[in-house]
Order: sequence, then structure tokens, then C-alpha cells
Amino acid sequence: MLMELFDRLFPINRSITGEGVRQSLSILNEVVPISQREYPSGTECFDWTVPKEWNVKAAYVKDGQGRTLIDFADNNLHLMGYSIPFRGYVTRTELMEHLHTKPELPNAIPYMMSYYKENWGFCVEHNRLHEFTDDRYEVMIDSELKEGHMTFGEGYIKGSSDKEILLSTYVCHPSMAINELSGPLVQTMIYRYLLQKENPKYSYRFLYLPETIGSLLYLSLHGEELKQNVVAGYVVTCVGHGESFTYKKSKRADTLADKAAIHVLKQSGKPYTIVDWNPFGSDERQYCSQGFKLPVGSLMRTMYGEYPEYHTSLDNRELISDEAMQETVQMYIDLIETLEANETYECTHIHGEPKLDKRGLYPYMGGTRTKAEKHRILAITNLIAFSDGSHDLIDIAEKLNVSGKDLREAANLLEQSGLLRNIKEIRYDLATLMG
Amino acid sequence: MLMELFDRLFPINRSITGEGVRQSLSILNEVVPISQREYPSGTECFDWTVPKEWNVKAAYVKDGQGRTLIDFADNNLHLMGYSIPFRGYVTRTELMEHLHTKPELPNAIPYMMSYYKENWGFCVEHNRLHEFTDDRYEVMIDSELKEGHMTFGEGYIKGSSDKEILLSTYVCHPSMAINELSGPLVQTMIYRYLLQKENPKYSYRFLYLPETIGSLLYLSLHGEELKQNVVAGYVVTCVGHGESFTYKKSKRADTLADKAAIHVLKQSGKPYTIVDWNPFGSDERQYCSQGFKLPVGSLMRTMYGEYPEYHTSLDNRELISDEAMQETVQMYIDLIETLEANETYECTHIHGEPKLDKRGLYPYMGGTRTKAEKHRILAITNLIAFSDGSHDLIDIAEKLNVSGKDLREAANLLEQSGLLRNIKEIRYDLATLMG
Amino acid sequence: MLMELFDRLFPINRSITGEGVRQSLSILNEVVPISQREYPSGTECFDWTVPKEWNVKAAYVKDGQGRTLIDFADNNLHLMGYSIPFRGYVTRTELMEHLHTKPELPNAIPYMMSYYKENWGFCVEHNRLHEFTDDRYEVMIDSELKEGHMTFGEGYIKGSSDKEILLSTYVCHPSMAINELSGPLVQTMIYRYLLQKENPKYSYRFLYLPETIGSLLYLSLHGEELKQNVVAGYVVTCVGHGESFTYKKSKRADTLADKAAIHVLKQSGKPYTIVDWNPFGSDERQYCSQGFKLPVGSLMRTMYGEYPEYHTSLDNRELISDEAMQETVQMYIDLIETLEANETYECTHIHGEPKLDKRGLYPYMGGTRTKAEKHRILAITNLIAFSDGSHDLIDIAEKLNVSGKDLREAANLLEQSGLLRNIKEIRYDLATLMG
Repeated sequence: MLMELFDRLFPINRSITGEGVRQSLSILNEVVPISQREYPSGTECFDWTVPKEWNVKAAYVKDGQGRTLIDFADNNLHLMGYSIPFRGYVTRTELMEHLHTKPELPNAIPYMMSYYKENWGFCVEHNRLHEFTDDRYEVMIDSELKEGHMTFGEGYIKGSSDKEILLSTYVCHPSMAINELSGPLVQTMIYRYLLQKENPKYSYRFLYLPETIGSLLYLSLHGEELKQNVVAGYVVTCVGHGESFTYKKSKRADTLADKAAIHVLKQSGKPYTIVDWNPFGSDERQYCSQGFKLPVGSLMRTMYGEYPEYHTSLDNRELISDEAMQETVQMYIDLIETLEANETYECTHIHGEPKLDKRGLYPYMGGTRTKAEKHRILAITNLIAFSDGSHDLIDIAEKLNVSGKDLREAANLLEQSGLLRNIKEIRYDLATLMG
Repeated sequence: MLMELFDRLFPINRSITGEGVRQSLSILNEVVPISQREYPSGTECFDWTVPKEWNVKAAYVKDGQGRTLIDFADNNLHLMGYSIPFRGYVTRTELMEHLHTKPELPNAIPYMMSYYKENWGFCVEHNRLHEFTDDRYEVMIDSELKEGHMTFGEGYIKGSSDKEILLSTYVCHPSMAINELSGPLVQTMIYRYLLQKENPKYSYRFLYLPETIGSLLYLSLHGEELKQNVVAGYVVTCVGHGESFTYKKSKRADTLADKAAIHVLKQSGKPYTIVDWNPFGSDERQYCSQGFKLPVGSLMRTMYGEYPEYHTSLDNRELISDEAMQETVQMYIDLIETLEANETYECTHIHGEPKLDKRGLYPYMGGTRTKAEKHRILAITNLIAFSDGSHDLIDIAEKLNVSGKDLREAANLLEQSGLLRNIKEIRYDLATLMG
Repeated sequence: MLMELFDRLFPINRSITGEGVRQSLSILNEVVPISQREYPSGTECFDWTVPKEWNVKAAYVKDGQGRTLIDFADNNLHLMGYSIPFRGYVTRTELMEHLHTKPELPNAIPYMMSYYKENWGFCVEHNRLHEFTDDRYEVMIDSELKEGHMTFGEGYIKGSSDKEILLSTYVCHPSMAINELSGPLVQTMIYRYLLQKENPKYSYRFLYLPETIGSLLYLSLHGEELKQNVVAGYVVTCVGHGESFTYKKSKRADTLADKAAIHVLKQSGKPYTIVDWNPFGSDERQYCSQGFKLPVGSLMRTMYGEYPEYHTSLDNRELISDEAMQETVQMYIDLIETLEANETYECTHIHGEPKLDKRGLYPYMGGTRTKAEKHRILAITNLIAFSDGSHDLIDIAEKLNVSGKDLREAANLLEQSGLLRNIKEIRYDLATLMG
């Protein structure tokens, strides 16, 4: 299903506004319910303004003999994003001022855009520059920049709590594969999984945004609600290829989002890299800005800027794989299930150890134990010892080097027997912090 | 003396109650004064209840021909602890349900008990199972489970201060050597040393308990006093063999008990291992429970579970050595003397360095110094520099990589000269903690 | 210029008082303005008292034949510092009680002094002891110990702020090179550089003191002002030779002085060593005493005690180099310029990223960037992201592994555009510290 969706989405000319976004969201809406929300050009979002809506019918460059050298119909990367309408003849010198190549990757069409300054341009493979020998060229850009709308997609699953987990990806990139179609595809599969999950504890929000301006718009509309409700969030991007995972921490670095992601990666046994938050990347830049400081990181595979084909036409179907995307979906599911299972307890019996055997939680007879018994006893005794309201299941699992969600069964047993009380929200132990 | 005591104590059938405990405590009482305290069966201690008192006269299993296959008189490990009285004939199948072996150690009689659920059982070497070929066996257990008492031993030395150092060991294990006769033996030697010490600063409490239920009983009787008074405590167990020392930290991990033990091990130059507190082990489980959080760790040699003979008949005289026990006694004495010597001072002269030569604390003439002079100057100048009420002698010794008790002489000189004032209790410097 | 000054200063007989200090300060005053301040013998400074003033005209030891064996005129290290006047004949035994050698460095005259106890002595090469075969010697010390003055030198440059950077060196050592003429020489070159600096932000104080007693005197006069004003200070000593730098931290260890020095050393790419504060060394002992806790460390090359010729006549012109001293001057200048450039900002636009292109701070067109553009964007975006009032430029530079002063240009741009506000004084983020 992933690759079929990919093949339908890939050719569409997406940008931060325009029909391409709407078409892409409609296709994904066949799989999961995505509301399309629209805000008019000129809408202010903090320091930024929603730009005009951009759509393209056709664009080409022809040489003196009328031969088509560049055609938007061949690859929508040929036209610089947000190119204004233009029709006329230009000299070679004039053309060259509007022609962009990437010399270090001569077979690639680079990805260029000029959202906030009116301009036009074409992008072409560097090793095709030799074809541009004529003195005069016909340039035709049948595009439109109008007072229209910016569109973004949103999905929401209501859980038992208003506290929510946020997944955010972006739908503004034209025909590229890792960055970006892998993000919306993977996010959609996670969303589909969660639709089928019974009684989720958390609510889930799925944003499909134009990058940067979209998250700024969303924050300007709902930032205070997100501050209130988001317990963990992840930007889903660059999830289509690579041997290992990359987790980029939230700016606060010590949030539940970070703790859970690093725990799950560690327990997965798969290779991974942790990188600090920095102001290069995607919408975690906005989510983590000083006014919001949301607990939002980004769980990726090989990330933006770390593979040579980044932001060029070579970032295409050949680079990604269904397998890598499925593996990422599974890692996100593990992460979400760990967050779902995670709770903070305090032990109700604090003077010495409670007597476990009389509650059926411990074998009556001393002696050797099976491995399963040992694991259960390990979980139970450590939960009792460390559940003091300032350690959640993930913290205790880290001490034992086991998976946090694997402690939940023992925690349930202990809660049923009255030995643990779920305190809902972690309490930081000031005395411990102060030494 | 240690091995003589060992040989008298080893054959006694100890359990968490019964005559074996009383006899063992009486033998140790020949060396140091140990009060025997008794609490009746049924006494509640938090979540637990003192069980019936158990004593055994005889127990055996005979085959169809009347040949004795198992005899409690040969080794008290043959009878499962707290086996109820039983006399009768059983089939082979019935017997097998009550017969315990340890397949991975086929020559060992395993150590089994069922304190809190009425049952009977025998333990035998796994490689003797082939002897049990008959269909019918005579089983005789002349034991008694009565409303009696639980007994524990206590010793106390009153020091200048009510603040106390707690040593705790256990006396509930039948005929085994490392775990456990080494603990009571080593603790008794430390106790004997302290009886001879003049004017100890701290008071000392020595507990000889049935494991778990004994410390729970003691905490239920005196837990609040221990919280008030104990500045450092150690569970003395598994101190009879091994190349290196093991220190298991208290749950709080940063107490004076931990700091001093790790400091002394480091300064000893001997090999050692530090392990975190965890809810497997001995009575530090109860002392460190959330309601008490006592500063109690455990200084051991090779610890429980880390040697293959653990909890079997192979944990016997051959494994332990007088030498290893004496070495442990000496390490505990070093630790105690370090705690005795440890004090916290503040310098009375804080504006620049005080002039030491006019107080006879520094040579008048600049130039080269002997090694002893250098050490004395090192101690004096660092004590003056770092004695600010938030660093004790051990802290300052750690900076200098010397032994804390070796700083005491210089500290005394400085106190006599009025340059240091003993502030009795360490003050944590909030400003420093807050960076 | 450095070596010319060196050659004029080297032969002078300096001590903690006397004409040698005045002559030395007068020579340095030719380069930078140094006020000579004098306080009479008997002046009390905390626990200490300014001693009598000491001056020497001549001193020698002759043997029975009238041959001069030791002559102060040859090397002023021959006479123990603060030797009292003496004239007379002594036996060999008597002489030996006053004759000092350094056996482990037999060709060196050791440096000895007895400031606070009246005595006399001579110092000689150990391998010349065989010349002292006679039974009788003439000893002549034409010295004077009088009620005079202690002299120290002070320079001050007034900056925009009363907050100041303190440099402190010492001028009490006779004819030695690394320790100590390199300190006053290097400090004088830094002082000269700062005299030419336009509109320094900080004020600068340069102290040329007799070691220990001089800094105690200064602190007794101005300690409270220093506590009020000094933001960073360094003791300039042992700066004349060595492959690498040594930074000795202030006692607090986490001051701006420490952070900046370690940052600058790290960014320099040169080898360096960091050592903790300890009560051996120079005047940082007094500046960092508990009553002052000034942010004063010491940036050195190979430090006192770490080279064999320390405190002997072999610490001479051959050991030091103009190059090493110039390199040290440059490192201090880098450090000072880093402190001058360092500021703490808070971002005025905290809800999402500000739009940089509309302020001319970011290229309008997405695509590949030059290295310089990348660096500027890196600086700008990180300054916006991390300027929250609790991180100064050095902190942010450490995140980026760039030099703190290289961020200043971008910070100025952002301040001009209103995106950063200089908050003058760093605010520690309690919430961050508390986790």
C-alpha cells in the first residue's frame, strides 16, 4: 500500500500552497480521515504572513530553434518554487541569472524556491549546461500567484485523556521521495494503526503542514492548546531509507518525548544516533521555540542533509524502500505503545517490603526459579522499590535494562492488589535533585 | 578464634525461629555481649507476622527395605526449612513432589524453606536420585511448629553521641559457611574491637537477626529511632571468601555510609566492585525501604548469587578462610575509624590565608621540604582552604587522594590553634549545588 | 622589547620590600603607567603584618686565606632573602648551619628566604661544597632591616563599566626568569595593548605585587571593591616557556573567568592542561580565599614546580623565549577580547522563528549557500534559538564549537534589528537547573 500511495503522490506539484497540497491530502484521506483546513493569503501568524497561493499549468525554456530544453511537464523540480508568471524572450546572460544547477551533483536537478520574494527560475542538471549555447531563449511560465489560501491537513483521535501525542509532517515538497514523501506516508500508516487501537489513553493529533509557515500558522491558532496538552510529539520526516535511526532531541532535551524515544531505540537493539536539537531541520524549530518549548523531537532514519541526494531530483523512488518505511512505522508504534503503557506509581506500602506471597505475587517456597518467574519477581520488586511518585515505568525499566512497556503487566498486578497507586502525573523529587 | 567459633556454630540447625538461633547467639555471647530479645508468634510487623516457632528433633526417608536414604542428622539442609511434622508411608510419586534437587550442581544439597505456607520437603543431591527406585518410602519428620517466639540478638556500645553506626547480620541460615556464618562471625570480631575502643564518638548497634522478618520486626519496634540516629550502617554478609570486595550502595546512594565505604575501599588499594542498590539481597532491602531510607549499604566480599555454591551444602568450610574474614574485619575497622575521625569544620580565618608560621604550623624559611613536612603542609593548607562547613574530612581527602583519617591530626592542630571550628554537622552549600 | 626589558630587570635584587621592587616598577613604568603605592612596616593586613624593609649593599663569605668563596655581587640568589646584617668569623660547623644547597640539582644555587624570622644564610651550588674545607670563614652581610615600606605597583584603565578584569603578577623574586620575570613582562605587554584599545567595555586593573603579603595587603585595602567589581581575573605567572598552556581554575571553578579561559584555550587549537584550584601556587590562594571567593584563575605555560629549574639560579634567560611570552600575550588578548565581546541576550521574538529575510538577515531564495553565508546563518539562528537570558555568547559558541567573539557580529546585527535585547547580566534559569 505504501508504494502505491507513493506512486500516486510523487508526480504531484506540491508547494506551501496550491492545488498540489489539496490533491495530496485528498489521496491520504482515502486511508485515514484528514480534514483540510484553509486560511487566506495575508493571514498573519506571529512574524510571518500566509503568502499568495501558487499554481502552475506549464513552464518551459526553448532555444533559438524552438527546441524545448527544459519542460516543467518532465519534472516539476525544473521550475523554481513560487516562480511568477513570465512569457518572453531572454538573452543567454539573462537566462543564466535564472538558471540554477548543483555542480557537485551534476546529474541532479536541484530543488529551489523563492516563497517570499517575487522571482522566477529554472533548475537543471549541471551537466546539461553545455546545451545552452544559443543567444536567445523563449521562456514561458504559466503560473498564477493569487489571493488564495494555504491548506493544511489535520487528523485527531480522542483518547481517554485530553493530553495528547502530536505527530507532524510536511506536504510542501514537490517530487522527492525521502524528503519528502516518506514523512506523510509513514505518518499515515501510524495514524491508521492508532485508528484501530481500542481505548487509547492519549489523544493523538496528526498534522500535515506546509513546512515552517504551516507550523507557525498552526501554532498561532492552537499554540496555547498544544502547550496545555502535548505530552510528547515527533516530527515525522526523512523516514524512508538508511541503515539506522536518528533521533533529534527536543530543545529541552529532557522531556518525556526524549526519554521515551531514546529508551525505545535502545531497547530495540537496532543501531541509532542521537543528535541535539539545533535550529536547522524542520518544524521542531517552531514547536521548540522559546514561546512554546513543546516536548517535540524528531525520529528519523538518515536525516536531511546527511545524504548526498538531499533536495534534488535524485531523491527519488530508488532511494526509499517499503521495508525501511514499515520498519519506521513499527518503531513509532513501539514508541507510542511505550508512552501508552507508561505510568507513574507510588507504593502504598513503604515500611519494609510488603508480603508478596500472601497476595499471590511471589512463590511461597524459597529455592530456584524459572526464568519467567525471575523476570516477574524482578519487575514486581523493583516496581515496589522505586515507585515513589518520581520515577515512571520508563525510568524503572532503564534501571533494569528492560522495555518500559514490559513492566506494565506487573504494575497492573500490583495496582490490583493495592500495592501501587497510579499518581497520574510524575512528581519531581526536589530533595533528590538537591542531593 | 574465628574458625573455632565457626566449627561450633556450623552444625546447629538455624532457621528464622527456634532453638538454633538461641544456641548460636549464646555461643557468640561468649565473645561479646548479645542480648537475646524474643517476640511471640503472631506479632505483627507492618505487612508481616512473626510465624510459629519451628524446631526439629529428627527426620529421615527410608526405602522399602528400611534403608535410610536421607537423614537430617547427616546434614540439616536435607530437611526443607519449616517442614511440618509428618510420619507415614508415601509412594515414589508422592515423595518426588516433596524432594528437591539442584540439577546444575548435582553434588549439592540445595537449601530450601517454606516459612509462610505449611508444607514438608527434603533436599538431596541430584546425582543421588537414582537411589530412589522403590515404590514405597517411609517418611518421618519429628518437627514442631508451635506458638513460640522469634529470637534476635542485639548489642549496643554507647558512644559520646547518640548518633550511631549500625551493623546488621543474620543468623537464620542452617549449615552454610559464606552465606551465612561469615557475617555473624565477622560482625562479632568488629564488635569485639569496638568494645576495646576508648571513647568512641558514635554509638554502635549490632543486630543479629533472622533475615527479612527479623529486620522488619526490628524496624517496627525501633524504626523511628534508627531514622533519628543512624548516620551510617552496613549489612555484614558474604564476608568469608573472594579476591575482592563488593560494596552495595544504599538506595539513596549518596549517604555518608556510601561515601565513607567507597573512600576506604579506594584508599585501601585492594580490588573492589561497586554495585547499585537493588531489591535483591539482604536486610538493606528493608532498611532502605521508602518509609525508612536509612543510610545502610552492604560491604561484602564475593556476594550472594555470585558464586556457584550459593544456597547449597557446598557453601561449606572449604570455601571460607580465616584470612579472608580477618581482612574483612580490618576493612570494616578502617571504615569505622574513618567515620570516627571524620568531622566537618569551618575555617575561622577566611580573609586570605592565615599566617601559619607564627602559630608553629609552617616552617619560617622558604626552601625545600622533607616529604613529611610536605604532607603536613598539604593537609593544613587544604583543610584551611576547603573547610567551609560543607566539606567534611572525607571530601577534602578525596580531593587530595589521601585517607580521610590521615587528615585528622592536622585538623586537630588547626582546631587547637583556633583556625578551624568543628561545626558538628555538615551544611550543604545550596549556592554550590545550584551552580 | 620584551628581552631588552628582561635584561634590565634581571640583575636587580628584588624581594618583598626594598629598592629592587621600586627600581623594577620604575623600569616597567617607562612602558605603561604604574603607580607605586607604599605602606609602612607594621601595617596590618588580616592575619599578617608588613615586615621591615630589607636592602642589601654587599655580602660575601671568605675562607681562611681571604679568598672569596661566595659573593652576592655574582648572583643575588647567593644571599638568603631577608638575611640580617652580620659581620664576623665563624667555624666551618657554624657556617654549614647557614649554607643551603640543592643536592638534586648540584649546579644550581637554590632560592631561599626567611621573611618572618630573623636569620641569615647563603645559598651555593651543591657541587661547590668541597671548596669549604677550611675551619674558619669570614662572613660579611651588609644588609639593612629597617622600619620602611612595602611597595607595590598598580595600573588602571577605566572602561565603560566599573566592572573590571583583574590581572595580577608579582615582583618579589630576585634574578630568575620564568618565575618570575615572565609574569610582570607579559602583564605589561597586555597592559600596553589595552591602553591602545578604544572604548573598552570593562575596566582593567593591573597589580604588580610582592607575592602573598602584597595581595593580602591589597585585599585588606580594596577587597570589598574587588568583590563588587571583578568579573574575571587571572594571576599572570610562569608564562615564559613550555610547549603548552596551563589553566588553573578559580576555587569556585565555574566562574566567567574559568569558562572564558577554557573556551579560548579550546578554540585556540593549541595544547593545554586544566588543573583544579589548590592552595599551592600564587596569589589566587588569597583572591580565592573563603572571605573573597573572587573569580580569579591563573593562565600559565609550564607552571611552578613542573620544571626542574624552579626556584634556582638555573631558571634563567636560557629557559625563556620572546616567542613563548609573545604567544602568551596573544592568548591573554584573545581571552580579554572574548570577555569584551561576550554579552547575554534574550530574543524578543519567542513565538516561532522570526522572519529573517524581511529584515535582510537571511537569503530569500532557498538553495545552496556559500560557506560564509552558512556561518552567518548558523550564528544568527542559534543566537535566536538560545538567547534566553541564561546563555551568554560563550555558552552558545560552545554549542557550535566556534569562538565566542566570532558570534558578536551576528549578535550586533540581531540587536540592531530588534530581535535580540542585551540583558547586561546573565540570569540563571532556575527551572533548567532544577531539571
